[in-house]
Amino acid sequence: MQRGKFITFEGIDGAGKSTHLAWLASFLRDKGLEVIVTREPGSTALGEQLRQLLLDHRQAMHAETETLLMFAARREHLDKVILPALERGAWVISDRFTDASFAYQGGGRGVPSARLEILEQWVQKGFSPDLTVYFDVPVTISRQRVQSARTADRFELEPDLFFERVRQAYLQRAKQFSERIRVVDGSLSLEEVRTAMVEVVEKFWSAQASSGYRM
Amino acid sequence: MQRGKFITFEGIDGAGKSTHLAWLASFLRDKGLEVIVTREPGSTALGEQLRQLLLDHRQAMHAETETLLMFAARREHLDKVILPALERGAWVISDRFTDASFAYQGGGRGVPSARLEILEQWVQKGFSPDLTVYFDVPVTISRQRVQSARTADRFELEPDLFFERVRQAYLQRAKQFSERIRVVDGSLSLEEVRTAMVEVVEKFWSAQASSGYRM
Ligand SMILES: Nc1ncnc2c1ncn2[C@@H]1O[C@H](COP(=O)(O)OP(=O)(O)O)[C@@H](O)[C@H]1O
Ligand SMILES: Nc1ncnc2c1ncn2[C@@H]1O[C@H](COP(=O)(O)OP(=O)(O)O)[C@@H](O)[C@H]1O
Ligand SMILES: [Mg+2]
Ligand SMILES: [Mg+2]
Repeated sequence: MQRGKFITFEGIDGAGKSTHLAWLASFLRDKGLEVIVTREPGSTALGEQLRQLLLDHRQAMHAETETLLMFAARREHLDKVILPALERGAWVISDRFTDASFAYQGGGRGVPSARLEILEQWVQKGFSPDLTVYFDVPVTISRQRVQSARTADRFELEPDLFFERVRQAYLQRAKQFSERIRVVDGSLSLEEVRTAMVEVVEKFWSAQASSGYRM
Repeated sequence: MQRGKFITFEGIDGAGKSTHLAWLASFLRDKGLEVIVTREPGSTALGEQLRQLLLDHRQAMHAETETLLMFAARREHLDKVILPALERGAWVISDRFTDASFAYQGGGRGVPSARLEILEQWVQKGFSPDLTVYFDVPVTISRQRVQSARTADRFELEPDLFFERVRQAYLQRAKQFSERIRVVDGSLSLEEVRTAMVEVVEKFWSAQASSGYRM
């Protein structure tokens, strides 16, 4: 059985990840693939409990504790969801993955990239997404889109400056891994964003086909 | 203000840690010291929640996930309890610390020491206990002592062979760090164990005094 592909969506809140993820899943299912949609942190029983601890706004925790918990949830996510699905040939799309640790714990909270790379290597042992779509939006647009009734979580309570640093870290990472991370301008209309995303995915798809991936 | 000392107690269940810890705390308080008694995993609001996740016997988690959660709880423990107390001159006694990760996740679950050392360095940055008392008991004695009515946690459900490996890893570590880790035969009578422990602590105490520690 041929191993599936691992695609991740990244971006700050309101960038359009959830909206376009649903679309990508049906696009791939229409090609006859088994598709698993998942998210971080969360997606396992333990991961969802850790997600609650991580998002609970009463929990003031050290940035390094937060980082270790994110990687603990990721280790479980890989073991229980991502790797078994890829092994049996399914494609996996995750709403956030390790780039988010570099953006939020790195850019946002100031944990040095070199320290994050140690944990990335410890947990992933070289494994990384085959394709990452980064939806880039200015913080003001993010804020406008997510203004909702529900109580803000521990991250959403951070000031705009925090999310500016997160965005800059994402952009910097997209530059560093320009082969894997594709930037889509998420500030455009829904239709324009979708068109840009289709292009990215079709290109990835063709590259797989021409490299001998059995569709 | 002179920094306090950090003492840890190690050993499998029933070795006598809790029993003798209470005694050591009063011994040190009688010398006029502020003494903080703490434990791992736990001892912070977040740590206690992680402890529940870690001990919950319905949670089947990957050994590496367990390891990362232990170190996450430890990072928080250092930040919120251990380091602030030592800074203000208090002495801290912890019921288990990093040697337990080498014994349980290393010896018990098979996570290689080299991998544990990476996380130890990541979290502790060279920090380690000033003195560790390891209470050594055979697994059969441990089992006899802790046979109680309460439901076994996720570790207690492990077979004797698991605890044999944990014990061997503790002994191996005591050999490797023979300056810091003092082995006390925990299979003796309570009085004999206490006498052996007094000796260890008095010796440590004198070494502090002769090295210029202001008592
Ligand atoms: N390009 C866009 N133009 C206008 N509204 C958008 C756009 N992308 C997303 N939205 C809206 O913003 C909100 C958040 O989008 P969502 O897909 O949930 O973002 P994310 O998952 O990245 O946080 C939703 O109400 C969505 O309809
Ligand atoms: N040396 C000993 N001889 C007899 N019983 C002991 C001895 N040490 C501990 N116990 C008993 O064994 C049980 C577990 O001891 P405890 O101090 O709680 O161990 P730990 O904290 O290492 O799990 C307690 O009931 C305690 O009284
Ligand atoms: Mg979303
Ligand atoms: Mg105890």
